[in-house]
Amino acid sequence: MSGEVQSMEEEARDRSLVELGEDWILSKILKSLKPISEGRLQVGDDAVEIPSSGLLVVSGDMFFASTDAPPGMKPRQMGSKAIVSVVSDFAAKAAQPLYFIVELGLPGKMRGDEFLELWSGILEAGRDYGGEVVAGDTNQALEISIGVVGIGVSEKPIPRGGARPGDILAVTGMFGKTYTGLHAAFHSNLEERWRPLLDAIYNPRPRIREGLAIGRARLATASIDSSDGLEACLFELSRWSGVGFEVTDPPIDPLAREYVSAYNLDVVEAVFRGGEEYELVLTIPRESFDEAASILKGLGSRLIPIGEAKPDRSIVAWIDGKTYHLSGRGWRHFSHP
Amino acid sequence: MSGEVQSMEEEARDRSLVELGEDWILSKILKSLKPISEGRLQVGDDAVEIPSSGLLVVSGDMFFASTDAPPGMKPRQMGSKAIVSVVSDFAAKAAQPLYFIVELGLPGKMRGDEFLELWSGILEAGRDYGGEVVAGDTNQALEISIGVVGIGVSEKPIPRGGARPGDILAVTGMFGKTYTGLHAAFHSNLEERWRPLLDAIYNPRPRIREGLAIGRARLATASIDSSDGLEACLFELSRWSGVGFEVTDPPIDPLAREYVSAYNLDVVEAVFRGGEEYELVLTIPRESFDEAASILKGLGSRLIPIGEAKPDRSIVAWIDGKTYHLSGRGWRHFSHP
Repeated sequence: MSGEVQSMEEEARDRSLVELGEDWILSKILKSLKPISEGRLQVGDDAVEIPSSGLLVVSGDMFFASTDAPPGMKPRQMGSKAIVSVVSDFAAKAAQPLYFIVELGLPGKMRGDEFLELWSGILEAGRDYGGEVVAGDTNQALEISIGVVGIGVSEKPIPRGGARPGDILAVTGMFGKTYTGLHAAFHSNLEERWRPLLDAIYNPRPRIREGLAIGRARLATASIDSSDGLEACLFELSRWSGVGFEVTDPPIDPLAREYVSAYNLDVVEAVFRGGEEYELVLTIPRESFDEAASILKGLGSRLIPIGEAKPDRSIVAWIDGKTYHLSGRGWRHFSHP
Repeated sequence: MSGEVQSMEEEARDRSLVELGEDWILSKILKSLKPISEGRLQVGDDAVEIPSSGLLVVSGDMFFASTDAPPGMKPRQMGSKAIVSVVSDFAAKAAQPLYFIVELGLPGKMRGDEFLELWSGILEAGRDYGGEVVAGDTNQALEISIGVVGIGVSEKPIPRGGARPGDILAVTGMFGKTYTGLHAAFHSNLEERWRPLLDAIYNPRPRIREGLAIGRARLATASIDSSDGLEACLFELSRWSGVGFEVTDPPIDPLAREYVSAYNLDVVEAVFRGGEEYELVLTIPRESFDEAASILKGLGSRLIPIGEAKPDRSIVAWIDGKTYHLSGRGWRHFSHP
C-alpha cells in the first residue's frame, strides 16, 4: 500500500461522506480514471470519448446493496461484484470489455474509508478483466447503488438464439454454491468447511477468458451467463433458439450437495434456481465439443457437458433418479418472498 | 393513446411490481427497445451492439428519487429528467446523443402504471433529443433509481478548458427559476403565478439544439452545463481554463426575482447556487459573439452575455450595486442541510 493511499485512508476513516463532501469523493474518483489518449476531452469533463471502429458491444447492470449484497459483504466486494456482473455479460457474448462508465449512489452516512474500498474494488475488477474505468460520478442515495456500463468489442458475438437440436449443452463450472452460500450467509453458518460456498457469493468471478477463447474458436452456437440461475438460462436459450433441453448430468457442486443434505434443502432449487454463479451456459455442436473442451482445459478451466438440445421445447432434468420438468422460473427481482 | 397502451395500463393499475413480477416489467421494456439494424445480437440479449467509427462521446448520470425528485414530481417527469441530465452533458460538449442504455432500480411497492409512466418518460425524452433507448434492464431497489448512459458523436466537442481572457461569458437562459421552484414545491406555494418556476423543476429541458449549433459553428472556446448551478460552472471553467470571471450582468430571471422578494430569499443564492437549470454556460471570443447570438436567435433561443473572462482567477459578480466574490460552492451532493 502506497503512502498516498494510507494517508487517503486515514483522512477517510470514521468520517462520513456528508462530512467529507462531494468534492472529496469526486477528487478520489477523477484521480483514478484512465485518460483516453486519443480523446479531445480531458478526464473529468462532462463526457468522455472512446475510440472505436465497426460495431461496439455495450452492456450494463446496476448493483443495489439492498438486493445484491448478502449479509457480511464488504464494500470492496460490492464494487467488484458490480463490475463482475457486467463482465459476465461480455463473457457470454465472447466480447472484451474495454471501457467502464461507473455511476455511484451513496448514502450520506457511509464512511469515507468504506467508499475508498468500494471504489478500489471497482477499479481493480475493471483492470482484472481487461478494461479501464474511464468515467465516474457520484450522487447521494438511500442505499449503495452502483451503475456500470461496459463498452467493448467482439469479433463475432455469440447470440442466445443459435442452439440447434443435437448440440451438446455445457457449462463452465458446477452449480449450487451461490444458493447454499446465500443460505449460509443469511443463517450465519460460517464454519470453515462452507468457506468455498461463502466465497462464491462474496467473491464471484466471471468467465471472461473462457468466453473469449470459445468465441475466438467459433465453436459455440448459443451462449448466456447464469446471472438468474441455470433454469432461467435454459429457458432463455430455449425461447431464443426454439429448442428444448434434456439435462442428463446436472452440474451439482459436491460441497453444495453436502450443505443441502446438512440443512435439508432442495437440491433442484440449489442447482437450478440459485443465480449469480456467473458461469457460462453454452450449446456446442457435438463434433466441436472435444476441441472446445481442450481449449478451456488449456486455460485451466473446464467445459462440463450436462445434456443436449432437443427439437421439442420442453426442458427436462434428471436428478437422483427423478425426472423434473423445468418451467423457466429462475431467480427474479420483484418475486414474492 | 393506442388500445394496446390502454390495456397495458389497465392491467398495471393498482397492482404493485411485486404482484406484476420482473417478467412483466421486462416485457414492457424489451418491447420498447430500438433494434440496431446492423447488430449481430438481437434486442434483449445480454449485450447490445452499436455501430461506430472514430471517436464516440459517452456520458452518464444517475437519478435517485430521494435526491433528484422534488415533492410532487410524477413518474413520467422522473424518467424524462433522468434523460435530460445526460442530454444536457451532450449539449455542453456539442455532441449528439444517439443511443441510451437505461438501468432501473424500482421499489417493489411501486404500482405497475407508475412504472409504465416512468418508462414512457424515458423513451419519449430519448427520442425528443435525437436518441433511442437500445438497452434496458430492471432491478429491485429501495427507491426509484434510473441510471442512464448516453453514447453519441461530436465533430468537435467543446472542452471546459479553452476559455481565454477577454472572451465573453454567456448563458442560454435566465437563472433562479429552479432555486425558487424548489422552494415553492417544498413549501407548497403552488399558486398559478409561480407555475413557470415549478415547471422549471418538474419539466427541465436541455439545450441540445443550441449546443449542437454552437458546436457546428465552432464559436465557443469553453462550455459546461449548469447542473450544479452557475457558481459551480464558473468555478469549473475557471479551474480548467486558468482564467477568472467578472459577471457584470447576472442572468436573474424576473419571476424568480419576484419570488425571492415575496419570500425574503437571497437573490445571489437563487441565481448562482440553484442547479439543474440545464442551461449552457459558454465562453465566446468577442469577435464571434454576434454570429453566435444570431445562430441561437435563428433557433428561437437566446445567447445572453453576462460578463467576461479575466486573466486572474478570481470570480466576481455585481448584483444590485454590490460586489460578490464567488468561491465555487455550488449545489453539492452530501452537503450538510
